[in-house]
Amino acid sequence: MSRLLLNCDIGESFGNWTMGLDAEVMPFIDCANVACGFHAGDPSIMRKTVSLALKHGVQVGAHPAYQDLQGFGRRSMQYTPQEIQDLLHYQIGALDGICRAQGGRVSYVKPHGAMYNDMMANPVQLRAVIQAVAAYGELPLMLLATRDNSAAQALGDEYGVTLWFEAFADRAYHNNGQLVSRQLPGAVHHDSDTIVQQALTLSRGQPLTASDGSPLVLQANTLCVHGDNASSVAAVKRIREALKPA
Amino acid sequence: MSRLLLNCDIGESFGNWTMGLDAEVMPFIDCANVACGFHAGDPSIMRKTVSLALKHGVQVGAHPAYQDLQGFGRRSMQYTPQEIQDLLHYQIGALDGICRAQGGRVSYVKPHGAMYNDMMANPVQLRAVIQAVAAYGELPLMLLATRDNSAAQALGDEYGVTLWFEAFADRAYHNNGQLVSRQLPGAVHHDSDTIVQQALTLSRGQPLTASDGSPLVLQANTLCVHGDNASSVAAVKRIREALKPA
Amino acid sequence: MSRLLLNCDIGESFGNWTMGLDAEVMPFIDCANVACGFHAGDPSIMRKTVSLALKHGVQVGAHPAYQDLQGFGRRSMQYTPQEIQDLLHYQIGALDGICRAQGGRVSYVKPHGAMYNDMMANPVQLRAVIQAVAAYGELPLMLLATRDNSAAQALGDEYGVTLWFEAFADRAYHNNGQLVSRQLPGAVHHDSDTIVQQALTLSRGQPLTASDGSPLVLQANTLCVHGDNASSVAAVKRIREALKPA
Amino acid sequence: MSRLLLNCDIGESFGNWTMGLDAEVMPFIDCANVACGFHAGDPSIMRKTVSLALKHGVQVGAHPAYQDLQGFGRRSMQYTPQEIQDLLHYQIGALDGICRAQGGRVSYVKPHGAMYNDMMANPVQLRAVIQAVAAYGELPLMLLATRDNSAAQALGDEYGVTLWFEAFADRAYHNNGQLVSRQLPGAVHHDSDTIVQQALTLSRGQPLTASDGSPLVLQANTLCVHGDNASSVAAVKRIREALKPA
Repeated sequence: MSRLLLNCDIGESFGNWTMGLDAEVMPFIDCANVACGFHAGDPSIMRKTVSLALKHGVQVGAHPAYQDLQGFGRRSMQYTPQEIQDLLHYQIGALDGICRAQGGRVSYVKPHGAMYNDMMANPVQLRAVIQAVAAYGELPLMLLATRDNSAAQALGDEYGVTLWFEAFADRAYHNNGQLVSRQLPGAVHHDSDTIVQQALTLSRGQPLTASDGSPLVLQANTLCVHGDNASSVAAVKRIREALKPA
Repeated sequence: MSRLLLNCDIGESFGNWTMGLDAEVMPFIDCANVACGFHAGDPSIMRKTVSLALKHGVQVGAHPAYQDLQGFGRRSMQYTPQEIQDLLHYQIGALDGICRAQGGRVSYVKPHGAMYNDMMANPVQLRAVIQAVAAYGELPLMLLATRDNSAAQALGDEYGVTLWFEAFADRAYHNNGQLVSRQLPGAVHHDSDTIVQQALTLSRGQPLTASDGSPLVLQANTLCVHGDNASSVAAVKRIREALKPA
Repeated sequence: MSRLLLNCDIGESFGNWTMGLDAEVMPFIDCANVACGFHAGDPSIMRKTVSLALKHGVQVGAHPAYQDLQGFGRRSMQYTPQEIQDLLHYQIGALDGICRAQGGRVSYVKPHGAMYNDMMANPVQLRAVIQAVAAYGELPLMLLATRDNSAAQALGDEYGVTLWFEAFADRAYHNNGQLVSRQLPGAVHHDSDTIVQQALTLSRGQPLTASDGSPLVLQANTLCVHGDNASSVAAVKRIREALKPA
Repeated sequence: MSRLLLNCDIGESFGNWTMGLDAEVMPFIDCANVACGFHAGDPSIMRKTVSLALKHGVQVGAHPAYQDLQGFGRRSMQYTPQEIQDLLHYQIGALDGICRAQGGRVSYVKPHGAMYNDMMANPVQLRAVIQAVAAYGELPLMLLATRDNSAAQALGDEYGVTLWFEAFADRAYHNNGQLVSRQLPGAVHHDSDTIVQQALTLSRGQPLTASDGSPLVLQANTLCVHGDNASSVAAVKRIREALKPA
């Protein structure tokens, strides 16, 4: 995979509540991280989301989460490694069922919110996630690119799981490759020129400038983009254009 | 399928709550109807249940339900045919995900509780269920054997879905082949001799005696048995023994 | 109560999902029907909603529903009368707890969605709701004004429950006083002059024109208004202005 | 309060799932900690539980929890102090609503499971709980007696909340007054003579022997007992008998 795929969280509506401009952003992305019902998405939302993705030839990724609808899967919860695996198999399978009914299949897995953060912070949990993905069979796992991906890569290799490392065009980074917390000033880029420039820098494998001014090279396979509102969709269009092969 | 398969609702515990003698009844059945999280069962219970079924060579069936944990899926709810299909794909897929992680697969589908009753009472809903099963691909659907299975069979044929008709050894029947309501006296047989006798009668294709005294022949592929308590498990063992090929 | 109170469904966000322009509409209403967590609203949303209502001197009403977050409480479910009462006590109490913590109290009860419709269609369920409200103690119940409110009024009198009948300024009526289904053309008025005129007609006790052209007098204590979007909020402002005492 | 009250977790069934011998243990306790729907208990279970408590003249305590039915409220979750307060007001109010409908009222609050443990481990969370109880109005809070209750007592005094400290007759203690983890050997006493003896020692204000052999005096107002099974109910009867005023 030489090109930087664009991935986007999608299908995060629930019942009568709408979130995100899914139809607007879908034409410009490669990979749709589809909510699986535990933090957002219900079976009917999931069907509509998968249908939209298939129509645009976008890969459907499972975006599983802790079971916390009120907290949108963003609150850490104390699960055992076995429970994490069970959550993953249930949610990947549920989305796969929705896909199968439309002639599609789940193509990869990207944990959501607190499950994602806990996986990046805790090697025991990362192992549980990788084991779960391996047991499900043949799906790549999407996770955060950091300064040094080797520990994660070793775990992926141990279980035969392909890893897709993702980077952010609209976020500031610490020099260890962790994202600067959204609580801090300057954590999120709002200027679309800055965002497009960071996307280009990442796609060329060139160093970003970390929050302490040091250079930071991230080896990334995919870029996380956002379809929350009109301005983020506009940024995705510009990134898509900028990353086009010459 | 000439032999009468024994099917049993299984995996209806949830979190810390235990229901049913799953480990005790599993050795004596052919088909385990496994709860998929909407009326009972959670991802971890489902994993344990599937593991137990695979260990005993028992077929794993999806036992999907309306989303109603408090009502155990027994309260009718106003879903559209499309929503019914979405519910089915989600839950079949979720259980299939749990199975895949253990090297198994879902083998058939049997709707639970109010979803089952509504499907038998309402042809629009039966069509939705059959369409959903057809779209998922290649799974048989288990449903109630009645005096005349031909309308259901025609729907199954229309969508290419194999139907497995089930009968009950411990329930009284009306002459149209509907079950006598549990609210009425004599609806449920408690005497194990009576139960075993009815199982044998059904397996031989001989007529039962309906509640009005008339003979009732049910064409059934499978018999629904129960693992709720010690006496129902004992009845299953006796049925298993009685139905053994000579 | 001689003046026509304006009531509005409020607090129907959930977790990260936002619905309705609560802050915009609150200054113009008398009664806020606050979702209680079963169809919408979570404890934190409820706290913010109650705080907003108290700030504007708006009465807080409990807006309880069937337990169906995905269906937004709009799908009928098969509850027993006793279960209906339990649902009501739980949800009224929960909102009252949120109110108490801010020095307020629940002032009335208005069932939501399918619970409201089923109550209007089924006298057994209306009795259950009235019994529940009576047992909670001293709260009025809001329900639909129809051509003839006497049967409901007799039930209210039997249990000592004050009834507040509500009418709609933006809906067409059948000649029996039932609302024309939203599925039918002309069911909802979108022209704000029409809406304001119907509000004035109702406030003066003058007859509306039913869908068959016949006159329809509705005895109403309160008018249901909507804060879903900018145009409905604008209509509420105009109604508020039009209904001001001379 | 000079006598050692017996408190017991009660009403932890849910829907069709039964847990605990509530009817058997209720006659022997003073205080019933009633589940409020977030870790166990549904509105109908709560009604039955409150009815049973009122019949036996047992005080009804709210037993609120994190929103985690699958985990039975035993998994820690990342709530903000404000969210903790909202959870408490919602659940205390809900139970109070159920009580009011039967002529009773909630008499005290005892957080459940992970919410209880987190409150004892984290002063910020203890403050949030005490603030919430104070804002609800006039209810005592039940919490763990430790070697030194003074910090908790100071917080209670600050908000004017009465604290009821509880001790355990069937658990081993560390010398700081923390319970020995259930994961460790000897953490739970199973011998009923030992349990009754520890209850008597606590009721007389005499020192227990901590896990390191040192004496440990716990100032307790109430003793936590269990109605899970026949042997724990038998122990409660013996404790009740032993603690009777001479």
